[in-house]
Amino acid sequence: MKLAFITIEGVESSGKSIQAKLLTDWLKENGLNPLLTIEPGGTPFGKTIRKLLLNGTNIDPITEFFLYLSDRKEHIIKVILPAMEKGKIVVSDRYYDSTFAYQGGGRGIDKKWIESLMNYVVQNVIPDITFLIDISPEISLSRIKGKDRIEKEEMAFHKRVREAYLKRAREFPDRIRVINGARTIREIQDDIRNQLKERLVHK
Amino acid sequence: MKLAFITIEGVESSGKSIQAKLLTDWLKENGLNPLLTIEPGGTPFGKTIRKLLLNGTNIDPITEFFLYLSDRKEHIIKVILPAMEKGKIVVSDRYYDSTFAYQGGGRGIDKKWIESLMNYVVQNVIPDITFLIDISPEISLSRIKGKDRIEKEEMAFHKRVREAYLKRAREFPDRIRVINGARTIREIQDDIRNQLKERLVHK
Repeated sequence: MKLAFITIEGVESSGKSIQAKLLTDWLKENGLNPLLTIEPGGTPFGKTIRKLLLNGTNIDPITEFFLYLSDRKEHIIKVILPAMEKGKIVVSDRYYDSTFAYQGGGRGIDKKWIESLMNYVVQNVIPDITFLIDISPEISLSRIKGKDRIEKEEMAFHKRVREAYLKRAREFPDRIRVINGARTIREIQDDIRNQLKERLVHK
Repeated sequence: MKLAFITIEGVESSGKSIQAKLLTDWLKENGLNPLLTIEPGGTPFGKTIRKLLLNGTNIDPITEFFLYLSDRKEHIIKVILPAMEKGKIVVSDRYYDSTFAYQGGGRGIDKKWIESLMNYVVQNVIPDITFLIDISPEISLSRIKGKDRIEKEEMAFHKRVREAYLKRAREFPDRIRVINGARTIREIQDDIRNQLKERLVHK
């Protein structure tokens, strides 16, 4: 299979970002041409949006939802699609599953409504494979130090986000691989690389 | 009738902002308690969005649309509704008719889709009366000096925006009053005040 778009998902402090970085390094070592990117904030425009999202106070859930959608649309058009057209493998630290988990599960926005809007935004730009780094909210919260706006949410919020992620993984078992995040960084990365090796061999 | 929410609409350089200001002054002189506000940018959050919208380069129409929606949602929650609850008359320099004119007419985004999303955002916060200051794109463009991103659009764009505004006025003839903007500031303001007097007398 063609492998052009990989996403890494997970709750706060799941270790997503370091895993995305290590994965990108490994793809490079294997002679591939990866691009590591992030949501929100993968474009200059998105960096401003990211600041609003993470540092703003008391943002309404619908306002927040629209901001994430505008960040994503810009990210797809300016970063993801141009990289794919150049034959790069895009590795994105968060993508649309985050919206289903946080805005759907966490904030309680209607899933059908999210889905219809999301289809309009992402169209056919769907990840080939997604690694969901799964940890319990207890581990997640114990790791958090600085605390931005999202990290400050209460335990119940983080539980709902995790549940929504796992539900989504059950809905898309071929695409979303649930990775046990309660292990060392090395073990998690080996797990991801092993799962990708199967795909890369058969492409 | 109750008069709690007045909006002023129009194309670039139609003189909306000065009319909104003069109207607010007049309401104050008449012992009422008005609040003058603006879209985009009616909240601290919205000011950042406004900068992105007016100074950004090459923003995708869908991205732009979501940014306007997030600005509006925040504006409704943080400014418009709290002011109404205090018994103020809100005068907004642009509101949701702008989205139908610019994103619908100007950018060609599907009107049904705009409508369904807009209902979700504005819910029952509908203007009691809207003054659409109508001028031809030729007059509009001849007045523009500095030119932000929207003002730089070509003539065809501005024509589509005007047409969409006028179409909307035909759809909502009771709410939207079309005001001939090719007159002096004083004449336009007198026209607006006369139309409001009828309403204020019967409230």
